[in-house]
Amino acid sequence: MSQKGILIVFSGFSGAGKGTIMKELTKRYSHTYALSVSATTRKPRLGEAEGREYFFKTQEEFEKMIEKNQLIEYARYVENYYGTPRAYVEEQLNAGKDVILEIEIQGALKIKEIFPQTLLLFVTTPNAAMLKERLIGRGTETMDVISARLKRAWEESQGIENYDYLVVNDDLERCVEEVHSIICSEHKRVARNQDFIRNLREELCP
Amino acid sequence: MSQKGILIVFSGFSGAGKGTIMKELTKRYSHTYALSVSATTRKPRLGEAEGREYFFKTQEEFEKMIEKNQLIEYARYVENYYGTPRAYVEEQLNAGKDVILEIEIQGALKIKEIFPQTLLLFVTTPNAAMLKERLIGRGTETMDVISARLKRAWEESQGIENYDYLVVNDDLERCVEEVHSIICSEHKRVARNQDFIRNLREELCP
Repeated sequence: MSQKGILIVFSGFSGAGKGTIMKELTKRYSHTYALSVSATTRKPRLGEAEGREYFFKTQEEFEKMIEKNQLIEYARYVENYYGTPRAYVEEQLNAGKDVILEIEIQGALKIKEIFPQTLLLFVTTPNAAMLKERLIGRGTETMDVISARLKRAWEESQGIENYDYLVVNDDLERCVEEVHSIICSEHKRVARNQDFIRNLREELCP
Repeated sequence: MSQKGILIVFSGFSGAGKGTIMKELTKRYSHTYALSVSATTRKPRLGEAEGREYFFKTQEEFEKMIEKNQLIEYARYVENYYGTPRAYVEEQLNAGKDVILEIEIQGALKIKEIFPQTLLLFVTTPNAAMLKERLIGRGTETMDVISARLKRAWEESQGIENYDYLVVNDDLERCVEEVHSIICSEHKRVARNQDFIRNLREELCP
């Protein structure tokens, strides 16, 4: 009975595994989902590829995109711009794909304002202890960085009520299927099936 | 991460198969769901059993239940009362079971008013032609009765926007799993996980 794709924002604590979940989700259901890639003015890090992690832009290019309304939302963190290119998102939605954006709460709320039917998902570990454990387990960060991330997690936790669903990542396999299942169920929402309901009513009209 | 059970109202066109879906759902996931049985003053029909289809009450008994606030909602159709006994619903919800009520829209809206977190599901055939076909296919009704049911379906279709989800019954097997999946996803709603979020925040508090 469907329908245009759903725009999905995926946020969550650093260390809760949202990158891994999204990667697995879009791999497993590649015909269903399209992953939006952000544009940024920050320099590529080792191993990052143009168009995979980000579209890397100069400040001038980025500001031209803003001017031409080519970004759905953008923000400036520290010294760099980050934004969501509009064309790809709209193309994929119109083709019936569910488009996933990985952005933080400020961006999520902007997106929701422009596209009220956006689905907001928040991913967390089962508890704070496990979050800390995972951040330490990475072995790539100093304790200072870990502390800063935990403080940031606490700040982010204040915004969870703005999200629609809370996904607990205690097991990657189950979590990926849960996210998929939430999105499939959302397609059945009355509010997302207005055309179908209108047709049904016309057919039933005595 | 859960939690009290969810109260679920299941409505739908006569002939869309909601009885069959609910029976199969509660059979397949008997540890998860409890089916609420209505009380009524109408006489039992052939094959109906006390406590299975309905709790059969005299008018006096029923009015005493109303007086003692033992019904969550009730209504009078034609000459008979129909209502939802409160005790069973509350017991089962507190035990963590999802409780399913099969009632019509007026009842559904009353329930939603008292329990705002009630989940409202509406089941339909893929189109009106198939609804008619199924009603005729039963072979138990005259064309007059079928016409009346289709007219009633049209009236009911005006209220679909009050529901949360629209479930299309084109295949029983798939439909049962879809309904189960919708309810599982609903358990992940942020609004249904306030305790979990509160705990998480306390743990994260620097």
